[in-house]
Amino acid sequence: MRDFAAEYRLLADRLMEKGLDVEQIKARLKAQEIETPSWGYSDAGTRFGRYPQAGAAVTAEEKLADAAQVHKYTGIAPGVAVHVKWDFPDGFDPAICQLAESLGVRIGAINPTCFSDEEGMMGTIANPDPRIRQRAVDHMLESIEIGRQAGSANLSLWFTDGTNYPGQDDILQRRRRVTESLQTVYAAMPESMQMLIEYKPFEPAFYHTDIADWGMAYLFAKSCGERAKVLVDLGHHLHGTNIEHLVAVLLDERMLGGFHFNNARYADDDLMIGSVNPYQDFLIFDQLVAAELRPDPAPIAYMIDQSLNVEPKIPGMIQSCLHIQRTYARALLVDRQALAQAQAEADIIAVGQVLTDAYQTDVEPLLVAVREELGLAPDPLAAYLNSGYQERIARERGIRSGGGGLG
Amino acid sequence: MRDFAAEYRLLADRLMEKGLDVEQIKARLKAQEIETPSWGYSDAGTRFGRYPQAGAAVTAEEKLADAAQVHKYTGIAPGVAVHVKWDFPDGFDPAICQLAESLGVRIGAINPTCFSDEEGMMGTIANPDPRIRQRAVDHMLESIEIGRQAGSANLSLWFTDGTNYPGQDDILQRRRRVTESLQTVYAAMPESMQMLIEYKPFEPAFYHTDIADWGMAYLFAKSCGERAKVLVDLGHHLHGTNIEHLVAVLLDERMLGGFHFNNARYADDDLMIGSVNPYQDFLIFDQLVAAELRPDPAPIAYMIDQSLNVEPKIPGMIQSCLHIQRTYARALLVDRQALAQAQAEADIIAVGQVLTDAYQTDVEPLLVAVREELGLAPDPLAAYLNSGYQERIARERGIRSGGGGLG
Amino acid sequence: MRDFAAEYRLLADRLMEKGLDVEQIKARLKAQEIETPSWGYSDAGTRFGRYPQAGAAVTAEEKLADAAQVHKYTGIAPGVAVHVKWDFPDGFDPAICQLAESLGVRIGAINPTCFSDEEGMMGTIANPDPRIRQRAVDHMLESIEIGRQAGSANLSLWFTDGTNYPGQDDILQRRRRVTESLQTVYAAMPESMQMLIEYKPFEPAFYHTDIADWGMAYLFAKSCGERAKVLVDLGHHLHGTNIEHLVAVLLDERMLGGFHFNNARYADDDLMIGSVNPYQDFLIFDQLVAAELRPDPAPIAYMIDQSLNVEPKIPGMIQSCLHIQRTYARALLVDRQALAQAQAEADIIAVGQVLTDAYQTDVEPLLVAVREELGLAPDPLAAYLNSGYQERIARERGIRSGGGGLG
Amino acid sequence: MRDFAAEYRLLADRLMEKGLDVEQIKARLKAQEIETPSWGYSDAGTRFGRYPQAGAAVTAEEKLADAAQVHKYTGIAPGVAVHVKWDFPDGFDPAICQLAESLGVRIGAINPTCFSDEEGMMGTIANPDPRIRQRAVDHMLESIEIGRQAGSANLSLWFTDGTNYPGQDDILQRRRRVTESLQTVYAAMPESMQMLIEYKPFEPAFYHTDIADWGMAYLFAKSCGERAKVLVDLGHHLHGTNIEHLVAVLLDERMLGGFHFNNARYADDDLMIGSVNPYQDFLIFDQLVAAELRPDPAPIAYMIDQSLNVEPKIPGMIQSCLHIQRTYARALLVDRQALAQAQAEADIIAVGQVLTDAYQTDVEPLLVAVREELGLAPDPLAAYLNSGYQERIARERGIRSGGGGLG
Repeated sequence: MRDFAAEYRLLADRLMEKGLDVEQIKARLKAQEIETPSWGYSDAGTRFGRYPQAGAAVTAEEKLADAAQVHKYTGIAPGVAVHVKWDFPDGFDPAICQLAESLGVRIGAINPTCFSDEEGMMGTIANPDPRIRQRAVDHMLESIEIGRQAGSANLSLWFTDGTNYPGQDDILQRRRRVTESLQTVYAAMPESMQMLIEYKPFEPAFYHTDIADWGMAYLFAKSCGERAKVLVDLGHHLHGTNIEHLVAVLLDERMLGGFHFNNARYADDDLMIGSVNPYQDFLIFDQLVAAELRPDPAPIAYMIDQSLNVEPKIPGMIQSCLHIQRTYARALLVDRQALAQAQAEADIIAVGQVLTDAYQTDVEPLLVAVREELGLAPDPLAAYLNSGYQERIARERGIRSGGGGLG
Repeated sequence: MRDFAAEYRLLADRLMEKGLDVEQIKARLKAQEIETPSWGYSDAGTRFGRYPQAGAAVTAEEKLADAAQVHKYTGIAPGVAVHVKWDFPDGFDPAICQLAESLGVRIGAINPTCFSDEEGMMGTIANPDPRIRQRAVDHMLESIEIGRQAGSANLSLWFTDGTNYPGQDDILQRRRRVTESLQTVYAAMPESMQMLIEYKPFEPAFYHTDIADWGMAYLFAKSCGERAKVLVDLGHHLHGTNIEHLVAVLLDERMLGGFHFNNARYADDDLMIGSVNPYQDFLIFDQLVAAELRPDPAPIAYMIDQSLNVEPKIPGMIQSCLHIQRTYARALLVDRQALAQAQAEADIIAVGQVLTDAYQTDVEPLLVAVREELGLAPDPLAAYLNSGYQERIARERGIRSGGGGLG
Repeated sequence: MRDFAAEYRLLADRLMEKGLDVEQIKARLKAQEIETPSWGYSDAGTRFGRYPQAGAAVTAEEKLADAAQVHKYTGIAPGVAVHVKWDFPDGFDPAICQLAESLGVRIGAINPTCFSDEEGMMGTIANPDPRIRQRAVDHMLESIEIGRQAGSANLSLWFTDGTNYPGQDDILQRRRRVTESLQTVYAAMPESMQMLIEYKPFEPAFYHTDIADWGMAYLFAKSCGERAKVLVDLGHHLHGTNIEHLVAVLLDERMLGGFHFNNARYADDDLMIGSVNPYQDFLIFDQLVAAELRPDPAPIAYMIDQSLNVEPKIPGMIQSCLHIQRTYARALLVDRQALAQAQAEADIIAVGQVLTDAYQTDVEPLLVAVREELGLAPDPLAAYLNSGYQERIARERGIRSGGGGLG
Repeated sequence: MRDFAAEYRLLADRLMEKGLDVEQIKARLKAQEIETPSWGYSDAGTRFGRYPQAGAAVTAEEKLADAAQVHKYTGIAPGVAVHVKWDFPDGFDPAICQLAESLGVRIGAINPTCFSDEEGMMGTIANPDPRIRQRAVDHMLESIEIGRQAGSANLSLWFTDGTNYPGQDDILQRRRRVTESLQTVYAAMPESMQMLIEYKPFEPAFYHTDIADWGMAYLFAKSCGERAKVLVDLGHHLHGTNIEHLVAVLLDERMLGGFHFNNARYADDDLMIGSVNPYQDFLIFDQLVAAELRPDPAPIAYMIDQSLNVEPKIPGMIQSCLHIQRTYARALLVDRQALAQAQAEADIIAVGQVLTDAYQTDVEPLLVAVREELGLAPDPLAAYLNSGYQERIARERGIRSGGGGLG
C-alpha cells in the first residue's frame, strides 16, 4: 500500500515552495466535469466486425445506469451525452430525465444522429436531394426540442457528409446547402443552447468531407451566429497537426465550444485517451488552463467520445476519466510565472524544465486527497471493479445485439 | 464519334518512329489478366453503415455471373478471387466451378476468411488462445483443399491480427504464433500453390498489426519456404511510402507474389483505382513492366480489391479494369532505351520527357485496336451499360442483405 | 515527327462534338500567365549541402536574363517574382526594371526576405524582441516602396516564424505580435497592391509555425483588410490534405490571392510540378477554371516556387511552365455541362468518365496550335535546348557561389 | 528543496512491495551508456539558415571538451561519436584519442561523412559514376582504419543517396551498387567492429532513398555478414510508424545494432528527445529492457543524434541524456510479471494500469540516489549551469563559423 498521506505532504510542500496555491488547485479539480457518451456503453466495432461484450448496454436506461457508475466512482462525470436516434427514438421522454436525476447524473450534449440513413450515400445536409436535407434538418429540430426539455446546453453536430471521388458532387453547392441547413437549425435553438460544429478530415468519406478542418467549421459557425462554436475531436486531424496550437487560436477567438476526448494514432481510431501521446494531452490542457486563468473564460463542454471495441466499457471509461483528471492536474501544476520568465529570456532549457517538472509530477497523491475530500474511494477503478457491478451486468444482461454505436 | 482508326494510325506511326514494337505491345495487352473479387459485387460500407444497392449480388452464383460480365466486356478479367466463408461456406462445391466455367471465368485466388470471428478481438493466428489459433489454421487448411480442387494457384492471406493498446499482448510471442501457424499452413499446400502474405499497417487494429509492413511479410514468407511470397495491397501503406520502390525491391528479391489494386488517399480507403494518383499507378506499372522485360520473370497475381460502397458494382469494376489496362499500356510505351540513356547521362530533364511522353499518351486508340482484334466492343463500359444487365439485376434481385463484404 | 496538324484536326472535331468552344479555350490559353521566381535561377540545396551548377545565376541581371528565356520560349511567363534582399539589396533600382522591360519581362510579386536573419531564431514578426520585429516591419515597408516603384501588384509574405519546442514562446502573444506587424505593413500598401499571406505547417520550425494553415492565414488576412488574401503553396500542407477543397473554399470566400506551384511528396520538397501527382494538379485547376467561369472572378497571382537542386534551372523552369499549361488546358476541356448532369443524377461512373476524358486527353496538339498562333516554336523545351544559351552561360558564368536561395 | 531522501524511501518501499529488485535496477542504471555526437556541439541550422551560438565548438578538441562536460555531470555519456571529415580530416590522430582519455571520455562510433560532396547529387555509393562510388568507399576504408586505431566498436553508416524524380536513375542498378560498396567496406572491417546501417525514408532525396526503411537496411546488412546490423534513428520514419514494433522485430532477429535518439514531429526534425512523445520513448525502452532481460542479449550502441539549432548545445545534451535515463528507469520499473499475467488474461484495463504505473512514476528520487552513489551532483543540469563553463566558452570562443554540422 502506498503511503499517499506522506507522499501528499511532500508534494504539497514542493508546490507551495514554488508559490502554487494547492487549495485553489484542489478546488479546480473538484469542479472539473467531463461528459461520458451514452453510446460508449454499448457494443462497438469496426467495418470488419462488431465485438459484442457480455453486459454491454442496449437500452437508454442501461446506458444511464452505467454512466452513473462512472460518475459514482470518479466524481467528475455527471453529464451523459446522448445520441438522439438511439436514446430518444420516439422524441423527448421525461422518464429518461427522471431516471438520470435519480441516478445522480444528467442529460448532457444532444447529438442528432445524422449518419445512419441508408439513402444518405450522398450525405445528409449537403445532399443534392432536398428531401433528404429536409429530413436531416427535421431530425435536428426535433433534437433541439429534446435538448430544450432535457435542459441541455449543447447541440453537438457531426455529419458524415462528403464524397469519395473527385467531382462526385459540386463542392461549392454542397457548401451552400450546409450553410442553409445549419442556419435553419441555429435559428430554432433556444437562447440557452450552443451549437457545436465538429470537423473531420475523412471517414466515412474518402475524397472530401464537407466540414474538413477547424477553418471550415469556424466559417460555418460564423455564418450562423455567436452561439455557434467549433468542437474539437482529438481524433479528427491529419498526421502532424499541432492540435494545441489550433486550440489556442480557437480559444483566442472565443470560438472553442467543446471537446471530444479520445486518442488516435493513424486515423479516427477512437482509442482510450492516454494511450497514444499523453504529453500531447498535457500540452492541450496547458492551453486550456492558460485560457481558464485569463479573465472571463468562455465555457467549454468537455466530452469523451471513444469507441471501446475491445476493452470493457465502464472500466475503460473510468480509466479515461482518470487520465483526463491527471492531465488537468498536471497542467494546473505548471509554474506559469517561471514559464513566462523563461519565455521572456528565450531560455529553452528552462522552459523544458518547467514543463517537464509539471508533466512528470506523480499527481496521484494530490488526486487521492481531492477524492477523500469529496468522499470518494482513493482508487476509483479498483473500487468499481470490487463493487460487483461488472459481474452482475455481465450475468444479467449477457451478450445481446442492439444499442446503436458503430461497427 | 471519335475516329479511332485515324488516331490509331497516327499513334502507331509515332511509336514505330521511337522504335517501339507495336505488335508486341498489343500482344502483351491481350495477355493481361486481372482477377476481380467476388466480394466486390456485394454490398459494402463503412463502420457508420452499409449502403445497400439494388441488384447487388448475394449468392456465389450471382457474384460469378456479375464477374463474368466484367470479363465479357473487358476481356482481361477471367479470374474471380473468392472468400471462403462467403463463397464456399460448406467446403468445396464442384457446381460453383462448373458454373464459372460455363460463364467463361474461373476461380482465382482463394482468400480464407480470417476476420469475421467475434471471439477474435485478440486476433486469429496470433491469438494467445491456442483453440482460436487452431480454428484459424483449420479454416486455412480447408481453404487449401478448396483451392486444390478448384485448381487455384494462390492462397491469399490477410489477417486482422493486431492490438489496440501498448502491452495488450506480447508482440514477440505473437510473432512466434504467427510463424508457427503460417508454417503449418504452408506445409499443407500442394506444389502448384503459392502462399501470398499481405501486410497492413493498421485497421482494424490501431496500435500494432502483426504483419505491419513489407519487411515483416517478407520475413514471415522466408520462414515458410520458397512458394511463400509477399502481396502488395496499394491501400496498405503509411502516408509517403514510395510503393514503386518497395515493389522494385520485392521484384529484385523475387518475392513479389501478388497485387491488390485499389486507391487510397487517407487510410485503407478501398477506392476505385485511378481516382487518387494515376501517375503513381503508372510508376508502379513501370517497375512491373521493367521486371517483365527482364529474363525469366516470376509470375505475379494481379487482383482488384476494392470496396465499392457508393458506386454501382459492375460498372465500377469495369472502370477499374480499364484504368489498369490503360496504365499497363502506358508503361509499355515507355521508351526504355531513351530512359536508360538519359539516366546514364544524369539528364533529369530528358528523363522527365521520356516518362511524360509515355504517361500522357492517350492510349485509347491502341486499346480500341486491341479490343477489335479480340472481338470486343470498343467501349466496354458503354457496351455493358447498354446491355440491359444492370437494370435487369436491379429489378430481379432488388435490395437485399447478405453476401458477405465489409461494413 | 508527330503530325500535330492531323492530330489537332481530330482533337478539335472531338471537342466541338462535345459542344466545347475551341477558340475560346485557345484564347484562355493565350492569356495564361505564370510568374517564375528570380531565386529559382540560382543555386539551391538542402541542409546537407548546396549543389552548385555551372551557369547558375548570381546577380539580379542574370536572373532576369534567364527568366526572359523561359518567357521567350513558353510565352506564358512574363512576370518575375523577386526576393528583396537578394535582388534589391540596396532598395529600388530603376535599372533593374528597365532591364526587365528590355528583356520582355516585368517585375512580379515582391517577396520580402524575412528569414535570413541570424538573430531570428525566435522569429521575425512574432519575435518577443520588439527591435527584431521592427526590423522585419521596416524591411517590409521598404519592400512595399520597391514594389510601388516597380509597379508590382503583389506583396507576397512568408515568414519562418515558429518554435521548436512546446512552451518555447507564448503562442497567443506571438499571434498578437504577428497581427500588429501585418496591420502596420498593410496600412502602408498603396491601393494598387495586394498582400498575400502564405501559410506553412512546419520547417524551419518544428513545433509550431505562427501561420500554420489556411485558416490561420485567413484570420490574419481578415484582420488586415480586404486587399489581404491567402497564398496557397502546394508544398505547404500536411499529408492527406485535400488541397482543391480548401482552394474551392478560399475561392468561394474570395480570399484566394495567389499560388505557389511546386510538388511535394513528403514535406516542403519544392520539386518540379508534375512530378508527384499530376492528377491532383488537374483537380486544383479544375476548381480554378470553375471559378474563372463564374461571374466576376477575382484575380489570382500564379507563381512557381521551386528549389531546383539537382536539375538545370532554365530547362526545369520551362518544363514546369509547360506542365502547368497542359494542366490548365485539360481543366478547360472538362465538359462542365455533362459533369453537372452526372452530379445531378449522382452518377459516379459518369462523373469519372467526364473527368478522365478531360484528364487523359493529350493536349499537345492543341498547345502546338496555340504556340503557332503566338509565333512560338512548337516544342519550347527543345527550342531552348537547341538555342545554345545553356552552354553559353555554363561556359561564361561557370560555377560560382552567391545569388541567395536556399541550402 | 525537495526532500529526495524521504521520497526515495517511499518509492523504494512501493517498488519492493511489487517485488521489484531496487538494487538491481540501480545497478542497471549505473551501467547505462549513451554516446553523444561530436557534431552536436557545433553550430547547426536548416536550409533557411544557420544559427550561430557563442561558444559553439569548432575544433575536435573543443567538441571533446564539451562532450566531457556532459559525461562529467550525467555519468552516463562516456562515448563520443565522431564524424570523420569534421573530426579526423587528415586521418587518424592519436592526440585526439589521448585528449579524450585525459578528459574521461573515449571515441565512440565512427561516422564516415558520405554526404558533403558537391559532385554527389546522384549519390555516393549508389552513384552511377564509379569514381564517385570509389571515393566514398575509400573514405569508409579510411574511416575503418581510424576506428581500428581509436578502438571503436562501431562503423555507423548513413548515406544521402536517393533521387528526387521518378526515373532519375535505375532503382535496381543503384541497389546493386549499394550492395557492392557495402560488401567491400564490410570485408575491410576488423573482427572487433560492427557495421551499423541506417535507413531514412526521405531528405535530402525526395523521390526515393536507396535505404528507405528497416526492411531495406536489413537486406543490405544480411548481404554483408553477421556483423552488419540495422541502426534505428527515431526521426527516420513515416508518420504513424510503430517504432517499438519494428524495434521488437529487429531485436527478435538479433539485427538491431544501434540507436540514434532524437525526436521528430513532422520529418527528420532532429529535436531533443523527450519533447514530442515521451510515452513512445518509454514504449521503445520497454522493448529494449524486455530484450535486455532475455538470455544472451546482443549489444546495442545507444547514441544521440540531434541538431540543436536553437538551444544551447551542452545544456541541451545534458537534458537529453537525463530524459533517456529517466525513460530507461521507468522501463525498468515495469512490473513484468503483472504485465504477463494481464496479457494472459487479455485484461486490457490491467495492462494499462501496469504500464501507466511505471510510466507515471516520478523516478527523480531513484536517479538522485543513483547519482549520489556515483558521486555525482543530484541535479546534473543545475550543476553544469552553475559551473561557469558555459559562460567561459561563450566568452573565450565567441561566435565563429565552421565545425561541420548541418544547415
